[in-house]
Amino acid sequence: MLKGIVPPLVTPLSDRDTLDVSGLERLIEHLIAGGVSGLFILGTTGEGPSLGYRLRRELIERAITLAAGRVPVLAGITDTAFTESLNLARHAAEHGADSVVLAAPYYFPAGQAELIEYMGDLIKELPLPMYLYNMPGLTKVNFESSVIRAAMQWEKVIGIKDSSCDMIYFHKLLRLTKQRPDWSLLVGPEELTAEAVLLGAHGGVNGGANIHPRLYVDLYEAAVAQDLAKVRELHTRVIELASRIYAVGRHKSAIIKGIKCSLNLLGICSDVMAEPFHRFEAPEREQIRDHLHALHLL
Amino acid sequence: MLKGIVPPLVTPLSDRDTLDVSGLERLIEHLIAGGVSGLFILGTTGEGPSLGYRLRRELIERAITLAAGRVPVLAGITDTAFTESLNLARHAAEHGADSVVLAAPYYFPAGQAELIEYMGDLIKELPLPMYLYNMPGLTKVNFESSVIRAAMQWEKVIGIKDSSCDMIYFHKLLRLTKQRPDWSLLVGPEELTAEAVLLGAHGGVNGGANIHPRLYVDLYEAAVAQDLAKVRELHTRVIELASRIYAVGRHKSAIIKGIKCSLNLLGICSDVMAEPFHRFEAPEREQIRDHLHALHLL
Amino acid sequence: MLKGIVPPLVTPLSDRDTLDVSGLERLIEHLIAGGVSGLFILGTTGEGPSLGYRLRRELIERAITLAAGRVPVLAGITDTAFTESLNLARHAAEHGADSVVLAAPYYFPAGQAELIEYMGDLIKELPLPMYLYNMPGLTKVNFESSVIRAAMQWEKVIGIKDSSCDMIYFHKLLRLTKQRPDWSLLVGPEELTAEAVLLGAHGGVNGGANIHPRLYVDLYEAAVAQDLAKVRELHTRVIELASRIYAVGRHKSAIIKGIKCSLNLLGICSDVMAEPFHRFEAPEREQIRDHLHALHLL
Amino acid sequence: MLKGIVPPLVTPLSDRDTLDVSGLERLIEHLIAGGVSGLFILGTTGEGPSLGYRLRRELIERAITLAAGRVPVLAGITDTAFTESLNLARHAAEHGADSVVLAAPYYFPAGQAELIEYMGDLIKELPLPMYLYNMPGLTKVNFESSVIRAAMQWEKVIGIKDSSCDMIYFHKLLRLTKQRPDWSLLVGPEELTAEAVLLGAHGGVNGGANIHPRLYVDLYEAAVAQDLAKVRELHTRVIELASRIYAVGRHKSAIIKGIKCSLNLLGICSDVMAEPFHRFEAPEREQIRDHLHALHLL
Repeated sequence: MLKGIVPPLVTPLSDRDTLDVSGLERLIEHLIAGGVSGLFILGTTGEGPSLGYRLRRELIERAITLAAGRVPVLAGITDTAFTESLNLARHAAEHGADSVVLAAPYYFPAGQAELIEYMGDLIKELPLPMYLYNMPGLTKVNFESSVIRAAMQWEKVIGIKDSSCDMIYFHKLLRLTKQRPDWSLLVGPEELTAEAVLLGAHGGVNGGANIHPRLYVDLYEAAVAQDLAKVRELHTRVIELASRIYAVGRHKSAIIKGIKCSLNLLGICSDVMAEPFHRFEAPEREQIRDHLHALHLL
Repeated sequence: MLKGIVPPLVTPLSDRDTLDVSGLERLIEHLIAGGVSGLFILGTTGEGPSLGYRLRRELIERAITLAAGRVPVLAGITDTAFTESLNLARHAAEHGADSVVLAAPYYFPAGQAELIEYMGDLIKELPLPMYLYNMPGLTKVNFESSVIRAAMQWEKVIGIKDSSCDMIYFHKLLRLTKQRPDWSLLVGPEELTAEAVLLGAHGGVNGGANIHPRLYVDLYEAAVAQDLAKVRELHTRVIELASRIYAVGRHKSAIIKGIKCSLNLLGICSDVMAEPFHRFEAPEREQIRDHLHALHLL
Repeated sequence: MLKGIVPPLVTPLSDRDTLDVSGLERLIEHLIAGGVSGLFILGTTGEGPSLGYRLRRELIERAITLAAGRVPVLAGITDTAFTESLNLARHAAEHGADSVVLAAPYYFPAGQAELIEYMGDLIKELPLPMYLYNMPGLTKVNFESSVIRAAMQWEKVIGIKDSSCDMIYFHKLLRLTKQRPDWSLLVGPEELTAEAVLLGAHGGVNGGANIHPRLYVDLYEAAVAQDLAKVRELHTRVIELASRIYAVGRHKSAIIKGIKCSLNLLGICSDVMAEPFHRFEAPEREQIRDHLHALHLL
Repeated sequence: MLKGIVPPLVTPLSDRDTLDVSGLERLIEHLIAGGVSGLFILGTTGEGPSLGYRLRRELIERAITLAAGRVPVLAGITDTAFTESLNLARHAAEHGADSVVLAAPYYFPAGQAELIEYMGDLIKELPLPMYLYNMPGLTKVNFESSVIRAAMQWEKVIGIKDSSCDMIYFHKLLRLTKQRPDWSLLVGPEELTAEAVLLGAHGGVNGGANIHPRLYVDLYEAAVAQDLAKVRELHTRVIELASRIYAVGRHKSAIIKGIKCSLNLLGICSDVMAEPFHRFEAPEREQIRDHLHALHLL
C-alpha cells in the first residue's frame, strides 16, 4: 500500500519533443535520495497532456529503467481518447510500471453515470492497478460519491489522488472509502498535506517535492508521528516555499514554471516547457533565484 | 473564401475504434446533396478529442476520398500536444485536405500571450491554411482581441469559427477583423446563424446540418438575400429542431447524442459514440423518433 | 404593451446618499427628447442595489414627477429581502409608477422551484404589473423554462427583460412565450438589440441609450421596419460606441462608469457613483472624452 | 481577543417578517450552555440578506438583551448599500453589540482596489470594531492579499472569518496576518475547524454548532490542547453530522434548511425560512429526524 510522498515529476525536456535524459536521471536520483515513496510521471506537473505520445512512451521506459525498482513508478494515462489511455497503460505494463493513474477525460465534461461506465470499460482491459486522480479544476468534472462508490467495487482500483483543493470533499472521501482500507488516499496540493495526513490521508503528491523532497518527506513523517510542533514548523516552511515560488509569473502555469525554473537553477534539469507554455524569461528567473536564496535552497 | 454552411460532421463509428465507413459515405452524400459548402471533420460534434489517432488519420483519408473534391474538407487538429496537432496537419496535407481548424489546447488554460506564442510556433510549420476555432466552453480560454490581432498578421490564418455562443463577442470580432476582408467568419451554434449572417458573418458551422442540411443552407441563403420573412420562418424551424432534439438526455453530451441518434433513425449512419459517451437507450431514442416525426423529418 | 427603447437610467448622485436632482431632470428630458418608450429606474445601470432605501424611494417619487406621464416609469424592486421588495413596490404604486421590475434575489442562489414559490408569493401582494428581469451574471440564477412557464400563468406578469447575453436562451424564450402575445420581450445589452428585434423581440433596455437615446431608437425603428441596410449601419455605430466607451477602466463596473462619465462630459448629470464604485479619475475621463469626440457625440 | 466557537445563529422566524422570540431565547441559552465564545447574528446561516431591515434591527436588539453580556454579540452588517451597512452598524452600537462583521457587497463584484476604498470609507464612520468576512461563493469576490494588507492598517479591523472553503487561501492568510497577532482568524465551514485550529486559527464560525454546540467546542478545545486522538474522533463526528444533515434536500439552501429543521425537531425554535427559501416538507423532515437519531442527538 502506497504511503508517503509521491512527487509528480516534472518532465525534463531539451526541446519540444526531446527528453532531457540526463536531467531526468538527476531528478530521479534527487527524489529517491530525498526519501520519496514513489514516482508519478505524466501528471499535471509533468505536463503529460502537452507531450506527444512517442515522448510519453519514452518517458515511461526511461523512468522505469532509472528508478530500477527502488521505488514504484506510477504512470499517468489520462487522455480524452479511451484507446490512447489503454495504449499508454499497455506500454507502461510492458515496461514494468507498477500502476497507472487516471483522471477524467478532459475535453467533454462527462456526467457521473457516464464516468462510471467509461471507467468500468477501461478497468476491464487494464493490465495494471489504477489510482483515480480527481482534478476537477482541469478536467471540469469532480468524482462525486457515486463514482467513488462504483470504483470501490473494482479491485484494480487501489487508491485516489485528490487535487480538488477542497478539504470538505477530502474528508467526505475519507469517510466514504473506509470500506476499502487498502486504498491509498493521497492529497495533491502540498499546502494541504499536513492536515490531510493528520486527519487520515496516506500521503501527498506534491509538486514542490521536485525541488526539495526531504522537506515534504519530513512533514509527512512528522504528521504520521503526530509531532504537532514539528508539523507546524515544516508546514510553515512548505507554505513559505509555495507562497514564494508559485507566485512568480501571472499565468496559471506559474506553478509548473516555478518548479522547472527552480530545478534548473539547482542544476538538476532543463527548464524547457512543452507548448503552450514557455520557460520564465530572465526577470522571473531572477525572482526565483532570490526566493531560492531566501529559502536557503540555493 | 469559405461561405455558407459547413457542417461539423459527426464521426460514424461501428465500435470504439472502428469507422462506420458506409455510414460516413451516406452522411457525406446526404450533406453534399443538401448544398453544404464544406465538410469540417474532427470538431466537437465529431467527437474529435475522444478518437484515437489511428482513427483520426483514417477519417481524414476517407472523408477526403469520399468528398472527391466536390466541397473542401477542413480537418480539426486541435490537441493538447503541439506535436500531435502538427502530425495531424501533415497527415491532412498529404491526403489532400484543404485546410485545418485549431482550437486552443484544452487541458491547461493558456494565457493570451502564451496562446499567441503557441500559435505562432505552430503556424510556422503548418502545411495548410488554418481556421481558428474559438470554443471557450470546452477549452477554458477565449480568443481575446490580442490573439485575434496577432492571428490577423499571419497569412496562413484565413478565418475563424466562433462557438463562444456570445454574440457581443461575435460583433466585436466582426469589427476587429475588418482589416482582413479575406477571412471567413463562421458562427458555431445554429441558433445564432440567422442573426450572425444578417449582421455580417459568412456562414455557419451548425451541428444540426448533419440531420437536415437543406434547412440550414436555405436559412443561410435567405439571410444573404436579406429576405427577412423567410429568415424568420426558417430560423423558427431551426430553433424548433434544436429545442426538441437537443433537449433529450440530461448530460452535456445531449446535443451530439441527439444528432447521432437522429441520423441513425434516418438510416444514415450508426449512433455508436466514442467513450466517455454512449448512445441513447430505448426511451430517449423513442423521444427522438417522436421529435423527428413532429418536425416532419421522419 | 411596451415596445421600443426603455433605457435603464443611471442614478445621478451628488454624493453617496444624495440625488443630483437637476441632473436627473436633465437626464429625463434628454431621454424623452430622444424618443424613448419608457424609463426604467433602479436597475443594474441605475446601481439600484447600491443605493440606500430612502434614496431609492426618493428617486421613484422624483422620476415619476419628472416624467409627468409622458412615458411610463418602471421601478426596479429587486432585493434579497421579500419585505423590502414589497415595500418598494407599494411605494412605487402610491406615487404613480406604471409597473415594477424584478430580478431574482441575489445573495442566495435559489433553485427554480424556490423561485417559482417566491415569485408566486410576491405576485399575490403586488400592487402593480411586473416585468421579470433575467440577470444570471449578477443574481447567479437563470430563469429556466419552468420559471417562465409558471410566470406565464400570472396575469400580473407582463413581460421580461433578458440580460443573460445568451441569444440561444433568448430565442427559446421567444418560442416559449408565444402563448402570452401580450408579453413584452426586451433585451438587455445594446449589442444584441438589432438581432433581437429583427427576430421577434419588442425592444431593448440599453444602457448606452442614456448617452445617445436617438441612436438606439433609430436602430429599433429600422429593425421594426425591416430596413436591413439601416439596421447594419446603426448596429455598427452601437458596437462602435460600446467597444469604445465600455472598454475604459479595468473593473466590471467599467460600463456604468463609462456611461456616467460620458453623461457628465455631455453636461447632463454628475458622475458620482454609489460605493463600492467610484467615478473615473482624470486619465480615464480623458479617454472617454476622446472616444466621445471620435463618436461625434462631443 | 475572540477565540473558540462562535456560531452563526439561524434566525428563528414565526413568519416572513416576525421573529420567533421565544425560539431565539431558547437558541441563545442552548448555545451559551454549550460553551460557545460569542454569538454571530445576521450572517449567511442567519439568512441575514433575506430579512427586512426592521426585523434585522429587532434581532440585533433582542439578541443583545438575551445574551446579557455573557458572551459577545457580533452583528452582520453586510449589504449592497453602503448607507444601510452603516445604519445597521450604528443601530448595533446603540444597543450594545460588541463588533460588526462585513462581507463584500454582493450584487456588483467589486475589484480589489474598489473594495479597499469602500472598506476604508466605511471604517472611518464605523462606531464598532469589525471582522472581515470572506465569502466569495456568495459575494463573487475573494479578499486577495492587497485587501488583507490594507485592512491590517486599520485598527478597527480585529479579525477575519474565512468561509472560502479554500485551505490553501487560509494558510496564506495565516502567513499574511502575522503582523497583526491581535487578529482573530476564524474558519467558516465546520468540516475545516479541526485542521484550521491545529495549524494556527483561533476558532470556528460553524453552522452545525447551532444544533450541537458542545461537540464543536470540544473539538476546538482538543485542537488547542493538541490532543490529536480526540481531535480525530470529534472531527469524524462533525463530518458525520455534516454529511448527513446537510445532504438532505437538493438546493444550495440544504445546509440552512437542515439546521433549522434539526433545531425544530429538537424543540428549540421554529423552522420557518425567509423567502426565497421554504422549510423542508414532511419527507425531508423525516430524513432529518432519522439522521438526528443516528447521531444520538434525538
